[in-house]
Amino acid sequence: MDALPVTLADIQAAAARIKGAVVRTPCLRSETLSRIAEADVWLKFENLQFTASFKERGALNTLLQLSEAERRRGVIAMSAGNHAQGVAYHAGRLGIPATIVMPSFTPNTKVTHTRGHGAAVVLHGDTLAEAGAEAHRLEAAEQLTFVHPYDDPRIIAGQGTIALEMLQDAPELDTLVAPVGGGGMIGGCAIVARGLKPDIKVIGVETASYSALRQLLAGEPVTAGGDTIAEGIAVSDIGKLPLQIARRLLDRVLAVEEVVIERAISLLIEVEKTVVEGAGAAGLAALLAHPAAFRGRKVGLVLSGGNIDTRLMASVLLRGLVRDGRIVRLRVMINDLPGQLARVAGRIGDAGGNIVEVQHQRLFGVVAKRAELDVTAETRDRAHVRELVAALERDGFVVRVLEGADL
Amino acid sequence: MDALPVTLADIQAAAARIKGAVVRTPCLRSETLSRIAEADVWLKFENLQFTASFKERGALNTLLQLSEAERRRGVIAMSAGNHAQGVAYHAGRLGIPATIVMPSFTPNTKVTHTRGHGAAVVLHGDTLAEAGAEAHRLEAAEQLTFVHPYDDPRIIAGQGTIALEMLQDAPELDTLVAPVGGGGMIGGCAIVARGLKPDIKVIGVETASYSALRQLLAGEPVTAGGDTIAEGIAVSDIGKLPLQIARRLLDRVLAVEEVVIERAISLLIEVEKTVVEGAGAAGLAALLAHPAAFRGRKVGLVLSGGNIDTRLMASVLLRGLVRDGRIVRLRVMINDLPGQLARVAGRIGDAGGNIVEVQHQRLFGVVAKRAELDVTAETRDRAHVRELVAALERDGFVVRVLEGADL
Repeated sequence: MDALPVTLADIQAAAARIKGAVVRTPCLRSETLSRIAEADVWLKFENLQFTASFKERGALNTLLQLSEAERRRGVIAMSAGNHAQGVAYHAGRLGIPATIVMPSFTPNTKVTHTRGHGAAVVLHGDTLAEAGAEAHRLEAAEQLTFVHPYDDPRIIAGQGTIALEMLQDAPELDTLVAPVGGGGMIGGCAIVARGLKPDIKVIGVETASYSALRQLLAGEPVTAGGDTIAEGIAVSDIGKLPLQIARRLLDRVLAVEEVVIERAISLLIEVEKTVVEGAGAAGLAALLAHPAAFRGRKVGLVLSGGNIDTRLMASVLLRGLVRDGRIVRLRVMINDLPGQLARVAGRIGDAGGNIVEVQHQRLFGVVAKRAELDVTAETRDRAHVRELVAALERDGFVVRVLEGADL
Repeated sequence: MDALPVTLADIQAAAARIKGAVVRTPCLRSETLSRIAEADVWLKFENLQFTASFKERGALNTLLQLSEAERRRGVIAMSAGNHAQGVAYHAGRLGIPATIVMPSFTPNTKVTHTRGHGAAVVLHGDTLAEAGAEAHRLEAAEQLTFVHPYDDPRIIAGQGTIALEMLQDAPELDTLVAPVGGGGMIGGCAIVARGLKPDIKVIGVETASYSALRQLLAGEPVTAGGDTIAEGIAVSDIGKLPLQIARRLLDRVLAVEEVVIERAISLLIEVEKTVVEGAGAAGLAALLAHPAAFRGRKVGLVLSGGNIDTRLMASVLLRGLVRDGRIVRLRVMINDLPGQLARVAGRIGDAGGNIVEVQHQRLFGVVAKRAELDVTAETRDRAHVRELVAALERDGFVVRVLEGADL
């Protein structure tokens, strides 16, 4: 059997190297999530790193192994996300010149943040591939060192330090769950976990739209692509080294749907009071979507990052309320006469619903002299929604609960 | 000088008593908040307690000192908030029967949560005062022990354990900032802080609408009342014991406005990836509103709790985006002719604004044949908003940025 590209000793050396310069994040048992999943659930809070993701570990482990000449000439990376922050922040700390190439559509806040750490940002290309090509061009033209986001033994070793800390804090873990983008983190974590506890299960999680590693391991063609809330793991190109590790050490790769990732983000906010991005919630989403795979086990989840756009987060929270029946939109058919709104509002108010928005619809209805009234109300739960509908129906109204597709 | 009702030794005893049954929450330095405040800022994460607030400490310290007979007969408390959860959870754990009286308007989720810990919930009265009266009636009628939320030496000693932990984790602190509701927590913390470091400053924070302690210390009449996002400290009735401690040991009580508390909640979510309720953000709000009082100091802030309603949180986040110019609503005067919307949308799109909502207003405008177009768009910041407006004005449109009062 061929040797793997990274050893447990490499990762222990990485841990010693980066100690003190990255946060030793907490790894805590969650009482409530354990109850929900019927398992022992531990969370590793990598969203509490300074740049709010684990990417600092691999970046710093790489930067600290550059030669004096390489440090002087500087580094280059291509990323619109957490890897950019990780490289820029630690290069800035160490006085290493850093250039980050980002696609030209990158949101301004990410550009500003990265520049704030002292890196030069080059906006180039309409796709990640074009930005990547420009980064390699600059690498050659300016003799910079390219810091790959995952397909490098130094990166993999750095990310593996997460699992070292988890098994120090919770040695009883028998299952380790981590999100899979290019595979660097799960690779490093698998080497640690299986090296220290040969019987531990290591499970990767991908979004359903980007499940390249699962497809590769199953011998299926890779079909990754599409929109996802988990941008951090929307990667179709698994690294060669991570793939080699995954074939040897991974037990399973699970795919999770978008809606479950949204639910996991909401749960972490409401129960754990912690903010994670989509990729960071993927592990919990896997527990929710595949409960049989985890029931009764001692499961460690890596909350890999916390960089979620505020607008997106507000929208996830509100959509969660709609799913839970805590906000509802009802379409009520009314006769277009005075007093109808008062009657509808009265029934809803009596039943304990708090109306927050009302819209009348006359022109496009089915019958003239009838109108549609769309009422948005705050409710307690799905049972309460049924009470509201029943109260209106008892008063003779025809009511429909509007779902996502109608809105 | 009269002896204070609680001593440092009482609080050290409380710490030993409750150890292992409440979370020893982290107290961590925040790099980014330190930069913003030009101070050394440490955060005490009491929002990570199991019931997501510090109230467990005082409740448990009290429950553990009941006699066998008192335990058997059970306890009663009046609270619609965090104190209810703290008493119910620990009474449930210890097998002590607990009754919680809540006003009848209490949201259902709070009732369900409290019952979930095994407590009996009595819904009574339209005000906190009426609920309180019912609690005292039941105390007498059923020989229950009343667990006061703040005006009791055992409660004050329990809450004081927060400051013990903070000074263990960050002994260099020279300023301690805590929110003030009835005064129990700030009282206990002041005894610890001044007991261990006689020169430390202890600063309380109230909302501007409920600043009873500040008013009492200044000899002003108490005028507390009104709506606030910081429900947990919307208390007009400072406890006798906390007042006695505050007169002796507090340096200052600062008042903060609602909008600053909202900003502090958003900052803690966006920067620290942590979810706090309004009261929990009051300390950071004080730093933002009164920077001169803290500049250059080593400041410990108690993030007292994380129980914020999800709807409210989403609304705070979105209002923050509006304040920062990241969502804007523009009112554009247009001629009521075909092609006008396309022109307006074109100018906004070219300038990089992402339109998310459009509303036409014809009937109520100033001039017939003219219409108002309200366009909501996502923008980068306030400077970007000015660019959008300028682009529309260059094309001849009259534009107004709608503020809160117009919406």
